[in-house]
Amino acid sequence: MKQKLTVIKVGGAVVEEPSQLDALLERFAAVQGHKVLVHGGGRSATRIAARLGVESRMVDGRRLTDDSMLSIVTMVYGGLLSKRIVARLQAKGVNALGVCGADMDLIRAHKRPVGDVDYGWVGDVDRADGEALRLLLQQGVVPVVAPLTHDGCGHLLNTNADTIASHVACALAPHFEVTLVYAFEQPGVLSRAGDPTSVIPRISEADLRSLEAQGIVSGGMLPKLSNAFSAIRAGVSRVVITSAADLSGQHGTVVA
Amino acid sequence: MKQKLTVIKVGGAVVEEPSQLDALLERFAAVQGHKVLVHGGGRSATRIAARLGVESRMVDGRRLTDDSMLSIVTMVYGGLLSKRIVARLQAKGVNALGVCGADMDLIRAHKRPVGDVDYGWVGDVDRADGEALRLLLQQGVVPVVAPLTHDGCGHLLNTNADTIASHVACALAPHFEVTLVYAFEQPGVLSRAGDPTSVIPRISEADLRSLEAQGIVSGGMLPKLSNAFSAIRAGVSRVVITSAADLSGQHGTVVA
Repeated sequence: MKQKLTVIKVGGAVVEEPSQLDALLERFAAVQGHKVLVHGGGRSATRIAARLGVESRMVDGRRLTDDSMLSIVTMVYGGLLSKRIVARLQAKGVNALGVCGADMDLIRAHKRPVGDVDYGWVGDVDRADGEALRLLLQQGVVPVVAPLTHDGCGHLLNTNADTIASHVACALAPHFEVTLVYAFEQPGVLSRAGDPTSVIPRISEADLRSLEAQGIVSGGMLPKLSNAFSAIRAGVSRVVITSAADLSGQHGTVVA
Repeated sequence: MKQKLTVIKVGGAVVEEPSQLDALLERFAAVQGHKVLVHGGGRSATRIAARLGVESRMVDGRRLTDDSMLSIVTMVYGGLLSKRIVARLQAKGVNALGVCGADMDLIRAHKRPVGDVDYGWVGDVDRADGEALRLLLQQGVVPVVAPLTHDGCGHLLNTNADTIASHVACALAPHFEVTLVYAFEQPGVLSRAGDPTSVIPRISEADLRSLEAQGIVSGGMLPKLSNAFSAIRAGVSRVVITSAADLSGQHGTVVA
């Protein structure tokens, strides 16, 4: 029987604000079995960019990443947030290792082709190395993954953290019984915007079209659900969209 | 017989300027056998700090590290430089992994006690974990170590890269035949300042006192030599102070 593994993706204030981070990591430390943390960092990147006089420009929720912005996200995601999380997890007895996709060639991507929009140094993931991750996990190491990948030709690429979490979960599915948890501000996908009691308990690909047509699911939730369905198709056992206040994966919206 | 391992410490423009970095990493990629790269980053930290309106203050060559400066060195050493080096090494076929001392609890330190000077979040190293590093090396991974450690209580600590290189070399000495290379702007320790033809071929601890008395060795070279002698006493086979233009360890000043 495969061992259990939980891949948890967390973004937003709960992972970026030092005042909230400690409580989040306390909950992460309490998650049993093998685990991987994938973190975002967009708010911090925007804040540091502004202090450096660099404007953050977004298209459809994606950050346009020129040379200056790539340096900033590399500093913020790969350095400031990653190492701060790692040091605090170590203090809680979790043997964390902060990586990005370039480290050990863990996540290879290609620069997004220029279409209507030139996103700059933004990566679309080609593959995650499940075997290298498995070796780390079997040694008791807990990977903390920053949303940066590389192209194998020396370039770092700014990459969506939800997508990274999905690829990491899929790459580990042959080796573990994987639960993928997307943790965010809401307790799940809501049928009535702003009403936390309206969590949709389960969403299938068939449901998605009608939810989208009704305008219940829109914006950043659409790619999140798309990543979730990809993970299920690739053998991930369970995908849950839930609140960062509860990383157990026992509540929230199950994607199936 | 033990396998050979080279620990190379590089700081200054050669590792911080993107234009010079590629040539350095080409030379590093060519080093045979197991290897570890320890990098500095002070110039970049000073530059980014200035852009953020934070003043860099140094005492005896050591950076005073308050909360703001700790965030900056964490971004610059642990993120910008580390991940840039790793991505470029991957492109050269080197399976690099960028770490700081908090990652996998590799290097534990304590905050320097406040004496005449309060250095802030500056760490003095207690131990490096040779066994964890050995496991990575045996898997073909090349650790790239940023000059940051942690105290085990959740705090990152800004830590001298020369000292980190010495501790890493010592921790690996039971497992490997270790050469420690301190690479910098000069071809070795010079008997006449500014004259690159005056490299002192060999310096012993006995020599050091007379060289210091004559004013030939001073400033940042003194702690570098102190770290070198510590490494020799702890079982490191060979310590060389040499030019970053030649990482072979075949030239320069041998410390013995």
